[in-house]
Amino acid sequence: MSEFDLINQFFKDSTLKRDDILLGIGDDCAILSPPPGKSLAVSTDTLISGVHFPKSTRAEDIGYKSLAVNLSDLAAMGAEPAWVSLAISLPDTDEVWLKDFMRGFNELSQKYNVALIGGDTTQGPLSITINITGFISEKLALKRSNANVGDAIFVTGTIGDAFIGLKAALDNNLKTGLSSRQLNYCLQRLNRPQPQIKAGQLLRAFNSAAIDISDGLYVDLKHICKASGVGACLALENVPLSTELLAFYNGKPDWQTIINAGDDYELCFTCPQHQVTEMTQVMKTHQIEATCIGKMVEKPGVECWNKTECLVVKSAGYNHFL
Amino acid sequence: MSEFDLINQFFKDSTLKRDDILLGIGDDCAILSPPPGKSLAVSTDTLISGVHFPKSTRAEDIGYKSLAVNLSDLAAMGAEPAWVSLAISLPDTDEVWLKDFMRGFNELSQKYNVALIGGDTTQGPLSITINITGFISEKLALKRSNANVGDAIFVTGTIGDAFIGLKAALDNNLKTGLSSRQLNYCLQRLNRPQPQIKAGQLLRAFNSAAIDISDGLYVDLKHICKASGVGACLALENVPLSTELLAFYNGKPDWQTIINAGDDYELCFTCPQHQVTEMTQVMKTHQIEATCIGKMVEKPGVECWNKTECLVVKSAGYNHFL
Repeated sequence: MSEFDLINQFFKDSTLKRDDILLGIGDDCAILSPPPGKSLAVSTDTLISGVHFPKSTRAEDIGYKSLAVNLSDLAAMGAEPAWVSLAISLPDTDEVWLKDFMRGFNELSQKYNVALIGGDTTQGPLSITINITGFISEKLALKRSNANVGDAIFVTGTIGDAFIGLKAALDNNLKTGLSSRQLNYCLQRLNRPQPQIKAGQLLRAFNSAAIDISDGLYVDLKHICKASGVGACLALENVPLSTELLAFYNGKPDWQTIINAGDDYELCFTCPQHQVTEMTQVMKTHQIEATCIGKMVEKPGVECWNKTECLVVKSAGYNHFL
Repeated sequence: MSEFDLINQFFKDSTLKRDDILLGIGDDCAILSPPPGKSLAVSTDTLISGVHFPKSTRAEDIGYKSLAVNLSDLAAMGAEPAWVSLAISLPDTDEVWLKDFMRGFNELSQKYNVALIGGDTTQGPLSITINITGFISEKLALKRSNANVGDAIFVTGTIGDAFIGLKAALDNNLKTGLSSRQLNYCLQRLNRPQPQIKAGQLLRAFNSAAIDISDGLYVDLKHICKASGVGACLALENVPLSTELLAFYNGKPDWQTIINAGDDYELCFTCPQHQVTEMTQVMKTHQIEATCIGKMVEKPGVECWNKTECLVVKSAGYNHFL
């Protein structure tokens, strides 16, 4: 099967339609009609087999996760998902693999009404690069530079679960002490992250800075600090942890690992103190868990306090070149 | 050096500024302001070392060519270049390599006023994926489906030179019979293709279909035929060839190879007969070589005539999976 047939068969017909796509897959360019008065939020993420996901990861999960991590960048800006380009390198043509990949991809693309507008298929080591575009009013964007001294720091969901999933995925014989149901939960957290699109959109009503936790809470929060010219003080005992993670650590969470574990794709965001009550109420109404874990301070950097003890953070998040 | 430092050092400051970039590299997303009343033309291309360029290719040439092939897609639509995202996989961090890569990249980005708005750097086999956005009025776009029976078929520049450059690049001991100046010309055609942005923009004034020749004249023209529901009849003796290519073939061009040779990034386009005189004049005024090589016909497919002899085309363009 030629590359062109591949493109036609798997990509052209597999995606939902949107009225703002004037010309879709199949020409030199897609032609798109952006909504009047809105700005575009654009992000790119690459996932490489053996680097960003274990080589044993199922095609369906790779398809899902590739889109999820890109949607997560839109979530961290508060944007509304619209269009996506997919560049995929494959060692060889494999129809079954591609079908499975697109099933996972489409599960999310349908949920968030994001349409595939083009891409490229090439022969090479398995690698996926996605470019995603969403709509946003620039003034409402959850820029990293929006944080101010005194703002409360929040995080959605729980932290560290994907890391346990990763350890389990890389080592079948890992002694986790977890039940298979608990282990499965952690693997789902690794392979099927939920982009916090709704949370990001709700935060547009508040003066929030936000980032998605891809490299680890510590280093991602540091990005907010740097961009805003402030610091952060974390109360580790308030960081939300799942019962599965607590079971894995026998009730004694390894904070050094947890705050440097990436791949959770929860949102870390700030909120001015006078908006906290309203914001919390809005999140509750939409059944989104959001937990206060600290506050922004003047002193640069991120200080992590475990009750009265200050944690000396050794690592600095996941680094692709380490 | 961490990935983040890399991004900052090489990408953030290396690119030109545009007023329509409200937020550039350094947040979860870039925020862009599209021009009112225009549509967006978007394309993605991946270049993999050893597949799309010889492993021996210089970093500067890779940087140049990565952007050139993407600009070429905008050219084939008649669009005005604006923004570009760059995803790059590198086996390891190499400052010299990255600087060289960006020098080649920036040479073109400055020429066409296209700004780097984001991207991703990851560890992996050398691979570059670029997503490019340009502006276009949808009604003026040079869609592949615009061709009609009777239209003249044109091509810019000359065809087949990049293929000779590729042969020479892959085999240092290749007996070409070319002078070093001639060989250098072919290598330049391989490594430094000129995206036909101006030609594409000029063609918006005419009822043209266009495609850039990336996979080979034969197969690329076939795409126009298929999209337009018509066929094409080529007069091979009219296909423009360089003196270098003619020297390589000792004056007897190997058509089978030439029409299936890719990587030229010239434009192949159609023009209604009643617009040919005006179009030719416009091209001449802008010093763009455009040669008539055939016409669109009713019979589907691409027929290639060498004077009175019909060529049975064996191959069907460059295929990444062959």
